[in-house]
Amino acid sequence: GEFAKIDHHRALRTGFPEVIWGPGKTPEQIAQIMEVMRQRNEVVMATRITPDVYSALQSKVRDVRYFGSAQICAIAPLELKPQYSGVIGILSAGTADLPVAEEAAVTAELSGFNVQRLWDVGVSGIHRLLNNRHVIEDASVLIVVAGMEGALPSVVAGLADCPVIAVPTSIGYGASFGGLAPLLTMLNSCAAGVGVVNIDNGFGAAVLAGQILRTAGKLQQR
Amino acid sequence: GEFAKIDHHRALRTGFPEVIWGPGKTPEQIAQIMEVMRQRNEVVMATRITPDVYSALQSKVRDVRYFGSAQICAIAPLELKPQYSGVIGILSAGTADLPVAEEAAVTAELSGFNVQRLWDVGVSGIHRLLNNRHVIEDASVLIVVAGMEGALPSVVAGLADCPVIAVPTSIGYGASFGGLAPLLTMLNSCAAGVGVVNIDNGFGAAVLAGQILRTAGKLQQR
Amino acid sequence: GEFAKIDHHRALRTGFPEVIWGPGKTPEQIAQIMEVMRQRNEVVMATRITPDVYSALQSKVRDVRYFGSAQICAIAPLELKPQYSGVIGILSAGTADLPVAEEAAVTAELSGFNVQRLWDVGVSGIHRLLNNRHVIEDASVLIVVAGMEGALPSVVAGLADCPVIAVPTSIGYGASFGGLAPLLTMLNSCAAGVGVVNIDNGFGAAVLAGQILRTAGKLQQR
Amino acid sequence: GEFAKIDHHRALRTGFPEVIWGPGKTPEQIAQIMEVMRQRNEVVMATRITPDVYSALQSKVRDVRYFGSAQICAIAPLELKPQYSGVIGILSAGTADLPVAEEAAVTAELSGFNVQRLWDVGVSGIHRLLNNRHVIEDASVLIVVAGMEGALPSVVAGLADCPVIAVPTSIGYGASFGGLAPLLTMLNSCAAGVGVVNIDNGFGAAVLAGQILRTAGKLQQR
Amino acid sequence: GEFAKIDHHRALRTGFPEVIWGPGKTPEQIAQIMEVMRQRNEVVMATRITPDVYSALQSKVRDVRYFGSAQICAIAPLELKPQYSGVIGILSAGTADLPVAEEAAVTAELSGFNVQRLWDVGVSGIHRLLNNRHVIEDASVLIVVAGMEGALPSVVAGLADCPVIAVPTSIGYGASFGGLAPLLTMLNSCAAGVGVVNIDNGFGAAVLAGQILRTAGKLQQR
Amino acid sequence: GEFAKIDHHRALRTGFPEVIWGPGKTPEQIAQIMEVMRQRNEVVMATRITPDVYSALQSKVRDVRYFGSAQICAIAPLELKPQYSGVIGILSAGTADLPVAEEAAVTAELSGFNVQRLWDVGVSGIHRLLNNRHVIEDASVLIVVAGMEGALPSVVAGLADCPVIAVPTSIGYGASFGGLAPLLTMLNSCAAGVGVVNIDNGFGAAVLAGQILRTAGKLQQR
Amino acid sequence: GEFAKIDHHRALRTGFPEVIWGPGKTPEQIAQIMEVMRQRNEVVMATRITPDVYSALQSKVRDVRYFGSAQICAIAPLELKPQYSGVIGILSAGTADLPVAEEAAVTAELSGFNVQRLWDVGVSGIHRLLNNRHVIEDASVLIVVAGMEGALPSVVAGLADCPVIAVPTSIGYGASFGGLAPLLTMLNSCAAGVGVVNIDNGFGAAVLAGQILRTAGKLQQR
Amino acid sequence: GEFAKIDHHRALRTGFPEVIWGPGKTPEQIAQIMEVMRQRNEVVMATRITPDVYSALQSKVRDVRYFGSAQICAIAPLELKPQYSGVIGILSAGTADLPVAEEAAVTAELSGFNVQRLWDVGVSGIHRLLNNRHVIEDASVLIVVAGMEGALPSVVAGLADCPVIAVPTSIGYGASFGGLAPLLTMLNSCAAGVGVVNIDNGFGAAVLAGQILRTAGKLQQR
Ligand SMILES: Nc1ncnc2c1ncn2[C@@H]1O[C@H](COP(=O)(O)O)[C@@H](O)[C@H]1O
Ligand SMILES: Nc1ncnc2c1ncn2[C@@H]1O[C@H](COP(=O)(O)O)[C@@H](O)[C@H]1O
Ligand SMILES: Nc1ncnc2c1ncn2[C@@H]1O[C@H](COP(=O)(O)O)[C@@H](O)[C@H]1O
Ligand SMILES: Nc1ncnc2c1ncn2[C@@H]1O[C@H](COP(=O)(O)O)[C@@H](O)[C@H]1O
Ligand SMILES: [Mg+2]
Ligand SMILES: [Mg+2]
Ligand SMILES: [Mg+2]
Ligand SMILES: [Mg+2]
Ligand SMILES: [Mg+2]
Ligand SMILES: [Mg+2]
Ligand SMILES: [Mg+2]
Ligand SMILES: [Mg+2]
Repeated sequence: GEFAKIDHHRALRTGFPEVIWGPGKTPEQIAQIMEVMRQRNEVVMATRITPDVYSALQSKVRDVRYFGSAQICAIAPLELKPQYSGVIGILSAGTADLPVAEEAAVTAELSGFNVQRLWDVGVSGIHRLLNNRHVIEDASVLIVVAGMEGALPSVVAGLADCPVIAVPTSIGYGASFGGLAPLLTMLNSCAAGVGVVNIDNGFGAAVLAGQILRTAGKLQQR
Repeated sequence: GEFAKIDHHRALRTGFPEVIWGPGKTPEQIAQIMEVMRQRNEVVMATRITPDVYSALQSKVRDVRYFGSAQICAIAPLELKPQYSGVIGILSAGTADLPVAEEAAVTAELSGFNVQRLWDVGVSGIHRLLNNRHVIEDASVLIVVAGMEGALPSVVAGLADCPVIAVPTSIGYGASFGGLAPLLTMLNSCAAGVGVVNIDNGFGAAVLAGQILRTAGKLQQR
Repeated sequence: GEFAKIDHHRALRTGFPEVIWGPGKTPEQIAQIMEVMRQRNEVVMATRITPDVYSALQSKVRDVRYFGSAQICAIAPLELKPQYSGVIGILSAGTADLPVAEEAAVTAELSGFNVQRLWDVGVSGIHRLLNNRHVIEDASVLIVVAGMEGALPSVVAGLADCPVIAVPTSIGYGASFGGLAPLLTMLNSCAAGVGVVNIDNGFGAAVLAGQILRTAGKLQQR
Repeated sequence: GEFAKIDHHRALRTGFPEVIWGPGKTPEQIAQIMEVMRQRNEVVMATRITPDVYSALQSKVRDVRYFGSAQICAIAPLELKPQYSGVIGILSAGTADLPVAEEAAVTAELSGFNVQRLWDVGVSGIHRLLNNRHVIEDASVLIVVAGMEGALPSVVAGLADCPVIAVPTSIGYGASFGGLAPLLTMLNSCAAGVGVVNIDNGFGAAVLAGQILRTAGKLQQR
Repeated sequence: GEFAKIDHHRALRTGFPEVIWGPGKTPEQIAQIMEVMRQRNEVVMATRITPDVYSALQSKVRDVRYFGSAQICAIAPLELKPQYSGVIGILSAGTADLPVAEEAAVTAELSGFNVQRLWDVGVSGIHRLLNNRHVIEDASVLIVVAGMEGALPSVVAGLADCPVIAVPTSIGYGASFGGLAPLLTMLNSCAAGVGVVNIDNGFGAAVLAGQILRTAGKLQQR
Repeated sequence: GEFAKIDHHRALRTGFPEVIWGPGKTPEQIAQIMEVMRQRNEVVMATRITPDVYSALQSKVRDVRYFGSAQICAIAPLELKPQYSGVIGILSAGTADLPVAEEAAVTAELSGFNVQRLWDVGVSGIHRLLNNRHVIEDASVLIVVAGMEGALPSVVAGLADCPVIAVPTSIGYGASFGGLAPLLTMLNSCAAGVGVVNIDNGFGAAVLAGQILRTAGKLQQR
Repeated sequence: GEFAKIDHHRALRTGFPEVIWGPGKTPEQIAQIMEVMRQRNEVVMATRITPDVYSALQSKVRDVRYFGSAQICAIAPLELKPQYSGVIGILSAGTADLPVAEEAAVTAELSGFNVQRLWDVGVSGIHRLLNNRHVIEDASVLIVVAGMEGALPSVVAGLADCPVIAVPTSIGYGASFGGLAPLLTMLNSCAAGVGVVNIDNGFGAAVLAGQILRTAGKLQQR
Repeated sequence: GEFAKIDHHRALRTGFPEVIWGPGKTPEQIAQIMEVMRQRNEVVMATRITPDVYSALQSKVRDVRYFGSAQICAIAPLELKPQYSGVIGILSAGTADLPVAEEAAVTAELSGFNVQRLWDVGVSGIHRLLNNRHVIEDASVLIVVAGMEGALPSVVAGLADCPVIAVPTSIGYGASFGGLAPLLTMLNSCAAGVGVVNIDNGFGAAVLAGQILRTAGKLQQR
């Protein structure tokens, strides 16, 4: 439409699916954009979709699927077969960080990547993390999601030997200031080699992780 | 003097030595206050004393001693014998946090407490901490000093079974914003039971730790 | 369940009851976690529970009790007998700070500690505090709760001879900035020996106070 | 001169002396403005004057006087006789707040007001204040100067029955953030009837206090 | 009651009516406190009362009155006769600042003071102010209420020869940051002699203005 | 050189002189860039040049001139003849804002525009402004420079009938927070039609004002 | 009415229509002010009007029109004929920024200016902008609207040769902090000659753009 | 030594050289740590080394080299042969960002990676970037360094098809607030897939970029 200039180039160029940012759009608008996008993409997805928006969407987009824990709607093949080698390990510090962690996980899976999940391994009970070190060791790239004090990425980066992407969440209260606290924690990590994305931006973390694995693939082909 | 109302009551009541805050005072002023205070106290100390202020003080206060790593000057018995049971474990995340950690340690020792030091065990190399868990286990109260992302107190509190006092430091740069980042981290710790003091306030942490051990002593006497 | 790794270790190790953070959880989820936890704990509690969540919980967890002023639900013996010596004195500055102060008080009582309450003794009417000094004198550790300008802990710490835990609240408006004002006040207290917890974190203050009394007990046993 | 439009009107209208803000001006510039101003004013003053600027001024302005503790230079009659009834009580919380408190005191005296000083009565040793309540009771208006946590004005306003002007100072460190902490404390005071001025603005507080006493005088004359 | 320690002393001592802060209290609680307070005070008032809370109050407190534009409920004599000499001039910059300005005006009137109102004279149309200068000239003390950029108090203080109390409001959007912008403007006013209160605190401004006029009265009586 | 890609296009396209940002560059570097630039430009200027940098420059760039009050060095014809019609009126609130105001004025003059200056007309003495209204009326575009509370642009925009560019300065102390206070004031101006530039950015204001006059010229030619 | 002092002068003087700020006003109040204003103005407009407020307005103001995408209501001639030469180019970075961009566009059109729109040309797909450079080249003044990172005005100002007005929007999440991020971006633009207005202030941008074109017209007439 | 626990593990595990953070360390301390580290590492480096610290180091560490533009000292083989395939493209927006960009470049080269530099291609002159697109196309991973408004990474990420690491710098003034402005810009980038590091953290960006290329290598070997 005339109010939006869809950037098919980027989707084609990067191999990522087209993505719609849900908030502030009516189900009608989302449905309309999805129908336009599906003409040129195998996978089309929309993020930050609440259950009631999904309900409304169902009657408009025939085969739309809902990934509830990730608040993502998508048009996609029923079976998602990984198209890239390597594994994206995704860790979350607390149970409440799950929606953001799942946004990352489902985005990555819809984009053709292998995902390994590890939830609720925050630093205040460090053995939960140490007992699951294989997830860290097996991953080619790690996404670490944490709210409140946001300390998990620092510890993980000290144990890992691969790129670490840190995602602060707005989970917390008081001096968390809407995610500012874990954001600063992650930016100040004394473990070098941590890249930080915006507060609650599981989607962006998955895209960056995917770019890293695709880069590896391209280097291989040379 | 008339510009300062020395609060002997508090020193007597709490058993802590009289303390002078160094910044903004001339060596003359510090010397003068020290001489007044020593008339009623066995131990008199001044914090945030740079080497050159100490040099100037030496010629004015006969037996003043300098604890360089802690930037503390004191009039005190040569041998400091612990007067309270229990041990204050003091941990620092990085080498650069040492002045603050030593301020805490020397304050505690001058106040009559046992101190156990453990330096440079930041979370980005978690095994340095895990290999020294005995310090955490042996302590009756812990002071944990950290700058940059300030994540150490959360991890320690998850391992410890005693009160934890967290001290953020202004060590860092960029998005550390003068210690704001570790301060927020510590306040948002998901490990309940952590008390936080002001940025760089090693002194205050030692006083709180001391109060905790003195409380234990008083309960025993009942 | 697989989305949460319950940390029984910590509860066992520290002697504190298992605690569920209520916000963002459905009554069903809270009920389910409570039932799992009660299998290994005599006391199970959930914080930040509004009356309507409690109503829904009642039909799911047979013997759940509600401490309305503290917004806490718990499975616990009807009569709570203190298991530790010493008294936790809890003071609040204003009437509006009561929910946070009661969260601290009920948490402490459910954890086996003696509590002495003193409400509405803010610094703008200092005689209300001075007329009740016995509460300060009788306590082994003090929790001081205050919103707006948050000045009460400084005054109390000047009168007390025991550890003081300061809890800023989000009560206030305008330049309170959601509790930032009392938080800064408390961190900058010129009375050394004050440990600060997160805004509205009555629960964390109670855990820290309890740790202090348990430490005293352990030192006694040596 | 052409770069400055001196506002003689205001000085005449308000009865306050002409005032020069020292920082960023050379001794030559200050001397020049003083000489112009003295032609129409009995009292001319300059604030934030360091000792070395005063040294340089001495050779240029014959009869300039220096009030060192207030960092004020002035051309003024040797004996300052109060021209208004009522007393401005000025309190400071700490010794380090003295320069700001003295800026207020000397400004008030140079403007023709009676001043009663009370230094170093911060809230962490509340009896120092309570033992000097007569200063509060005798004042017609109070200026209360405090850095660090800035709690003194709240306590004083609760004891006083006259207008209270609060002056936050930049004295402090860490989470004081250059005086932001006491500023917020004072703005959030739960004792209604406190007016706040800018950080370190002893001068402005004195002008406001003076306006209050002059108003009283004018009402009397009706 | 046991949850609130009513400070009759202050009301008696200062001559101001007892005041209840409405937000977070049920109509039942407000009614109950009003009934207790009226036993010892001729005027009892509650602030920040929305129309529906007033509706509920009406059936509980027989003779309660509502000052809608000020969101104040009060028990008070039908005719308010000024008890102090002098006039409090109250100015507002914009129409939207009216609720805060009226909170100040009604509080002052209920406390026995003469009030002169001047609304909507913001600095972007300076002639509206200049054409009404008599309000500034006739006042013994001025309350100036402004949101958005908050520049009005500076201009008024430059024209006035009496104390000026500045009240920032949360009216605005975007970079107003909930009233932070006008708050900073007022604190930085280059017109000395302006006292600032908290954002939206019309009540506090009225109390301070009243204190100023009462001081004048007391000085007269000597 | 290879570390800098000089953007001759912009200078050619916009008609503005090439400009060098002085801070962080050695006199040698500034001289070198000036010599390169002069090959293609009649006027070359460098901003934020302190007197000692100018001294060093003099021996390296033969005909460099210094505009001391503006801290600008330039290679330029001795007589600057205006090349565009219209007048840029530049107002400053205080004497201390002069360096920023002069940076704007000299930049505009070096760029070929007529400038009319009006200094020290801050809002706390409004008649200084009202007595000079002709400057406002004669201007085609206004630049208004103010520190501290930054209220001048709002008043000016209410009097003017042309575009107003507001420049906050870092002049101030305490709650000015390095110019944040006047910046917010200007962004929140209730007088619509004010464009704001960065703190202390007199240069940018002049470029914007110049663009406005050049636009007028281009429209005329159609 | 007595609560509002309508500033007809400004509307007459500047040629802009009278404007009502909708938020916080009832439909009744808006209707009443509109009716008063229309007596002296051909165009009367109200901004930030939601659809339901418009519905209520329809029955009160006979011929009121609604510009839904701009959330503007207006009384205006059906056909808006441009009254000034020149074109205001308006660009938006994202689809979500449209309401702010349209507020600017409709305000400009109602004020008698030509507008050229270009939506959804954010910098992350730079070719969308480069492919539409004619809009930049044809404009006499540009308004550039952007949320999230707010980078578009910098790029546009580098391409344009006319004044650029930057409007940050509150569109974004997390570290956008309600529009603070794009606001800072725009203020720090390294492309000189960008004037910034308040967050979401499309209206103010249009007024400034209009002032610029009117200035051009006035210069022509000389 | 006892004040530092060197983490040889990490260097061995990750293949990166040992790195010393220079600020706050004396040349003696740096020399001492370098000598210890060289016993187990081929490359040892220290960052943020000013020329005079380097001078002092020269006499203590025989073969230390200085990379002046990057402020890095290192013990390293004279010829640095790349040990990994792929290219790290490094772009800087302005000349003043060079020290940070060079810190990234030299760190990467000392760690065994190929680097391609592109300086001074900020968004306000977009053709400088578009004319050098081959650097973007040839890179396997990009580091984009920018101060002031920090918009470059968004534009680059829109053009690139590889991971982008964004480094905000503290270059700027006024509303840059020490690098906060570009930091927020980068976190809010509407181009998904950008990872952000701390302000001025060129070193961390290089480590993350290196981890990405090493990951590619490891995936290849499987
Ligand atoms: N959950 C998400 N978090 C961050 N960015 C997102 C998310 N979902 C979509 N986006 C971005 O939003 C863009 C689409 O915005 P729109 O055109 O408004 O639908 C996509 O290209 C993504 O870059
Ligand atoms: N009121 C409270 N304030 C702060 N932290 C709490 C509170 N209630 C529970 N918690 C913490 O939240 C954790 C449980 O979180 P969850 O697993 O999400 O239920 C507990 O271990 C406590 O540390
Ligand atoms: N110490 C001070 N604190 C605050 N404002 C001051 C102080 N000294 C002078 N001023 C103000 O600065 C103005 C003089 O500024 P100037 O014209 O630059 O010398 C006076 O009118 C006072 O309002
Ligand atoms: N509108 C108001 N703005 C600021 N403070 C108020 C206001 N109304 C009441 N207060 C203060 O709140 C106190 C009463 O609080 P409470 O005991 O919670 O009802 C009074 O003593 C006043 O100091
Ligand atoms: Mg958990
Ligand atoms: Mg180390
Ligand atoms: Mg009360
Ligand atoms: Mg003292
Ligand atoms: Mg109005
Ligand atoms: Mg002046
Ligand atoms: Mg789009
Ligand atoms: Mg450049």
